[in-house]
Amino acid sequence: MKTPVIVLNVKAYRESAGGRGMALAKACEEVTRETGVATAICPQQVDLALIAKSVKIPVLAQHVEAYDAGSHTGHVVLGSVKAAGAKGTLLNHSEHPMKIADIDAVIRNAGKLGLTTLACANNPEVSTSIAALHPSSIAVEPPALIGSGIPVSKADPDVVRNSVEAVKRIYDDIQVLCAAGISTGSDVKAALELGAEGVLLASGVVKADDPKAALLGLASGVP
Amino acid sequence: MKTPVIVLNVKAYRESAGGRGMALAKACEEVTRETGVATAICPQQVDLALIAKSVKIPVLAQHVEAYDAGSHTGHVVLGSVKAAGAKGTLLNHSEHPMKIADIDAVIRNAGKLGLTTLACANNPEVSTSIAALHPSSIAVEPPALIGSGIPVSKADPDVVRNSVEAVKRIYDDIQVLCAAGISTGSDVKAALELGAEGVLLASGVVKADDPKAALLGLASGVP
Amino acid sequence: MKTPVIVLNVKAYRESAGGRGMALAKACEEVTRETGVATAICPQQVDLALIAKSVKIPVLAQHVEAYDAGSHTGHVVLGSVKAAGAKGTLLNHSEHPMKIADIDAVIRNAGKLGLTTLACANNPEVSTSIAALHPSSIAVEPPALIGSGIPVSKADPDVVRNSVEAVKRIYDDIQVLCAAGISTGSDVKAALELGAEGVLLASGVVKADDPKAALLGLASGVP
Amino acid sequence: MKTPVIVLNVKAYRESAGGRGMALAKACEEVTRETGVATAICPQQVDLALIAKSVKIPVLAQHVEAYDAGSHTGHVVLGSVKAAGAKGTLLNHSEHPMKIADIDAVIRNAGKLGLTTLACANNPEVSTSIAALHPSSIAVEPPALIGSGIPVSKADPDVVRNSVEAVKRIYDDIQVLCAAGISTGSDVKAALELGAEGVLLASGVVKADDPKAALLGLASGVP
Repeated sequence: MKTPVIVLNVKAYRESAGGRGMALAKACEEVTRETGVATAICPQQVDLALIAKSVKIPVLAQHVEAYDAGSHTGHVVLGSVKAAGAKGTLLNHSEHPMKIADIDAVIRNAGKLGLTTLACANNPEVSTSIAALHPSSIAVEPPALIGSGIPVSKADPDVVRNSVEAVKRIYDDIQVLCAAGISTGSDVKAALELGAEGVLLASGVVKADDPKAALLGLASGVP
Repeated sequence: MKTPVIVLNVKAYRESAGGRGMALAKACEEVTRETGVATAICPQQVDLALIAKSVKIPVLAQHVEAYDAGSHTGHVVLGSVKAAGAKGTLLNHSEHPMKIADIDAVIRNAGKLGLTTLACANNPEVSTSIAALHPSSIAVEPPALIGSGIPVSKADPDVVRNSVEAVKRIYDDIQVLCAAGISTGSDVKAALELGAEGVLLASGVVKADDPKAALLGLASGVP
Repeated sequence: MKTPVIVLNVKAYRESAGGRGMALAKACEEVTRETGVATAICPQQVDLALIAKSVKIPVLAQHVEAYDAGSHTGHVVLGSVKAAGAKGTLLNHSEHPMKIADIDAVIRNAGKLGLTTLACANNPEVSTSIAALHPSSIAVEPPALIGSGIPVSKADPDVVRNSVEAVKRIYDDIQVLCAAGISTGSDVKAALELGAEGVLLASGVVKADDPKAALLGLASGVP
Repeated sequence: MKTPVIVLNVKAYRESAGGRGMALAKACEEVTRETGVATAICPQQVDLALIAKSVKIPVLAQHVEAYDAGSHTGHVVLGSVKAAGAKGTLLNHSEHPMKIADIDAVIRNAGKLGLTTLACANNPEVSTSIAALHPSSIAVEPPALIGSGIPVSKADPDVVRNSVEAVKRIYDDIQVLCAAGISTGSDVKAALELGAEGVLLASGVVKADDPKAALLGLASGVP
């Protein structure tokens, strides 16, 4: 699966719980239908199966542990994410940072299960490091910009450019996404021009007065 | 909400993922309807909302973090569990042990949200310690017996008796459940005779050839 | 061992590393010699053996894991702390919060090794909960006041009073210390008047221009 | 600093605590003096300053957190390790696995402080991934072989060969060490012949009846 251009991580916000999370998933689906721009959603973990059953766009988990299925009360594992209907998972988000051996194990096992992996990295060096583990995609997301409204493509375009270059030098088929601070169509446009193949975002849509309008705005930045 | 007599924690087993998790929830519901014995289910975290929408018995999360709703990618919080339709949560399971300050925070916040809390403890001293934080229920579960098929009520009845006594001395309204190694109706009967008000179990049902038959067996131990 | 009236936790500050940590330990020792007020020091973990060999006041570790001695690279265990010359350990400091089952295990094993345990608690409920596990002492330390310069004895005297009362009701021999925001002799005096038997502090001494003078000031609050 | 050929990690064993840890450090020092083979020791964390003051061979911490110096009770930070006299630190040992962003931060900050970093990796892919973060050295240590007495150089020589090749392709100046299961001079010889520049070991020496004899045996494998 190619990682969609717009990936919405709804985190654990009040604004994305229960029915509001379902509405966000439906909004993504409508925007894809109306504009042709591929979107994906990472629902709250407890809503994963319900939302995967309810929308046609790809659904990703927000995190998985490196365990195989088994006696792991309260933990989310790859097999269960797949059985719930997800196409893959985020991993190593700065709000749920992972041990390097676990990132390796999850990427390896996701491959065996046919699941996609979208790993987050906080800077170009960590992007390069994760690239050696060969995930499907890498999202470069400087922690200082998360939720800031200042897109990394504007604050520090070299972070994006250098990450794309470094990652592609290791595995040409890893897609690089731009994350942190993305909220408008022109942020998306700038990210794609810097070599990113998509964006990962959260509060810019989840906390918008009109999430669907925000998504349409983002989609308008895709040529 | 009074904690049901039989609480089924399906953990993250292959046998409880996806459709098989839904079948387990339906089996609990049928057993309650047919026998009148109250049951509850703790689905895999990613199945929580879907199962809560599909059955009439109480659904509990397997774990929650002590955070309020917010930017907590990959974490499960109380507000989201409630919005997903759960009535409460397990906490401090030995497979997901919690910091004492977090147990305190979760119990406190669950109370505000009208959610029930079923905290696990590994011995009578920890049961007493957790009792001071006033959860709805406490399940005493010596780690060595988990998945052993040897019920604590048989291996060490004093663990159950002493826990019930110590907990009730602190707050009389905390229900004490017996966990670890429970798999038959006579295990349930023994637990209730020792003063427990219910059982928490997992593999005895999840890994049974016929989970519904296993549940009916357990229910037969309730007078 | 009775927990000394003034316990200095030097944390991992630049001002308490290497030779500066040794100077702080010597200052505590001198103040005890000069004033008769019992002090103890919790050196940086890497300085524990060296400082324990160099001063006559009791030395405590800042934290230990619940493991027995063994293959635990990078972790500090009770047996090693004892072999290094320490008399006991802090545990569950809010900067290194512990799982409830681990607090239980450490207190239990420390008792077998003849080591003292000084457990931190963030509020009266958690103080009561930890009291059920019977540590040597409990320090009540509301996280919001740590490093604030506002002593809990002033900000919220009831937190101290209620903790002392609740703890003593469970085990009369647990000493209660007052922590967070203590920096002067009158803070110490107020804490003792509220029923505390000592204070646990850090930045008020470590970051003082003249740590020995700060310690003498604190000691002056002891009747 | 070039990482010595033989690096002894004493873990948190009973056999390496207190005076026995000091004896191990002295044995390493004597072997270096007598044979000319460079050795280094990673003492128990609480013994670090004392041992660093007592021997002339390089001393490394077993682990550090990614924090800067500050209010981090119970945690070990780079600045304190340096102030204690250490020349660097192990990191990401499989018994204390680290988050990838923390490995990056520690390597970066160690460089600024002039400290060496010896990072552990569980397989060639993780070796490559860590190489992108440019530590001083990488020790390849398949977890299944730790403490087994079966050296990785014998069990799976390709793990060593592939790691050396992959790491050097990224940064030619990173030294690769062979770890897990090393206990004799011929294990050391085999490791060096496969391209490793040294060995990292623990139980083979710490639990030997005569640790100095074991070290001399290892040193005999260095040409």
